[in-house]
Amino acid sequence: MLKIEEIKKLQEILMNSWPAHHYYFLNGWIMRFTEGVTSRANSVFPLNYTGNPNNLERDITFVEKAYQAYNLPAIFTIPDYFEPDNLDVKLIEHGYQQLGCITHTMIVPVQKLRNEIINDEFSYDFYSERVNKISSFLSKFSKRDLQAQNVLDRLASRIIIPQKRYIIAEYENKVVGTLMGVLDSHGFLYIADVLVDPDIRQQKIATSMFFKIINEWGIPNRAQRIWLQIEIENMEAMNLYTKLGLEKAYSYYYLEKHLVI
Amino acid sequence: MLKIEEIKKLQEILMNSWPAHHYYFLNGWIMRFTEGVTSRANSVFPLNYTGNPNNLERDITFVEKAYQAYNLPAIFTIPDYFEPDNLDVKLIEHGYQQLGCITHTMIVPVQKLRNEIINDEFSYDFYSERVNKISSFLSKFSKRDLQAQNVLDRLASRIIIPQKRYIIAEYENKVVGTLMGVLDSHGFLYIADVLVDPDIRQQKIATSMFFKIINEWGIPNRAQRIWLQIEIENMEAMNLYTKLGLEKAYSYYYLEKHLVI
Repeated sequence: MLKIEEIKKLQEILMNSWPAHHYYFLNGWIMRFTEGVTSRANSVFPLNYTGNPNNLERDITFVEKAYQAYNLPAIFTIPDYFEPDNLDVKLIEHGYQQLGCITHTMIVPVQKLRNEIINDEFSYDFYSERVNKISSFLSKFSKRDLQAQNVLDRLASRIIIPQKRYIIAEYENKVVGTLMGVLDSHGFLYIADVLVDPDIRQQKIATSMFFKIINEWGIPNRAQRIWLQIEIENMEAMNLYTKLGLEKAYSYYYLEKHLVI
Repeated sequence: MLKIEEIKKLQEILMNSWPAHHYYFLNGWIMRFTEGVTSRANSVFPLNYTGNPNNLERDITFVEKAYQAYNLPAIFTIPDYFEPDNLDVKLIEHGYQQLGCITHTMIVPVQKLRNEIINDEFSYDFYSERVNKISSFLSKFSKRDLQAQNVLDRLASRIIIPQKRYIIAEYENKVVGTLMGVLDSHGFLYIADVLVDPDIRQQKIATSMFFKIINEWGIPNRAQRIWLQIEIENMEAMNLYTKLGLEKAYSYYYLEKHLVI
């Protein structure tokens, strides 16, 4: 697969695995709106641009008005490939600034995974929906509160075409970790929402959930490649997944402009 | 504007004026799902194709599985321009058949409209939402029942970025006609859901609602072009709008395949 095609493909699968509440289409760009919860569900995906490059400024202004209509800042996802090719420069001229750090999209074919042993001091249960236990655990230990988790519950209910599974790790009936897997029918298994109780780290719970979902659900359902996204600041995750065999496919970051509302 | 660009632009505005419940992205194609209500909100818009043409058959099969996941037939919108250019032939080979008749997209710049006098024997009120009076009138006189109208009420609630207005024509407090206008910020005013009580036709109610929304709402809000879509079987509407100055921009039809579920 060529680089550009791979980026377009994976960014599309990402949109499908993380379906926004509302969409708006402008000259090939896809705008997403989800009550402001997660940048990826509230940003423009500029994978194709069929507009006139001379009107780029007008289109950027249009995007800003559109996000304003939702009371949201305008955010563009900027992967290694985007259209038109001067978009990033124009956005910076327009006052956009980088939001957060760069994210790496990491991928590995299942044959190249370096398997690890499951830590079976913990129990690992599969769920086909994003049950309340997951959102309440994530609201406690992630940066998103319960209200934001409820937006993500509704987002997850829109995942109809790809298959999805959740894993909850427990110790003495107490949730200690969660993980989501979304399996595209082209065999891409996307892993997200991996979180372990910070009090019980270094127990290989994340690794165990990762291999549980791959070996017991992904591979029997024809997963061929495993992929996920890591903010490069997250050294712990970066080290873990690199050790397991995942390699960077491409990276992206967000450019954001806060609008006067 | 070139033909291809105009088709892409208007088809995008159409998606934005008629926002589907769920979306799915496949190699540039945009799939739409809205509980099966209206073909346009439940079909693939193949405006761009970034996939490998050798995999076209696989992608068509993928679309069918996706619609199957929603218990819906697979439908492709086929405008005068679509990608890839052999898509229509491939679909027919796959067992697709034409659904309904051809639809013409008709358009006119406001300066070229041939104004007509408003019939002021009726009252014409503006609404900013699709109020119950509209859905109950449409359920009585259009081909879509109240359940389908409720799906369209929810669809209309997703029109956030473009402006929208509804007109209800009444006679002695009885609804006799409705019309919806959606105004894109590029100045395209899209007219839809035009319906008049069949018992009181030939009173220029449709014409009156049409000019009311254009002159009292569209033009003051910078509408530059008026456009709408007419099934070519609808001779009455075709004659009316042609007389008012609208001309065909492009046409489209649907190719459908009923799937064994």
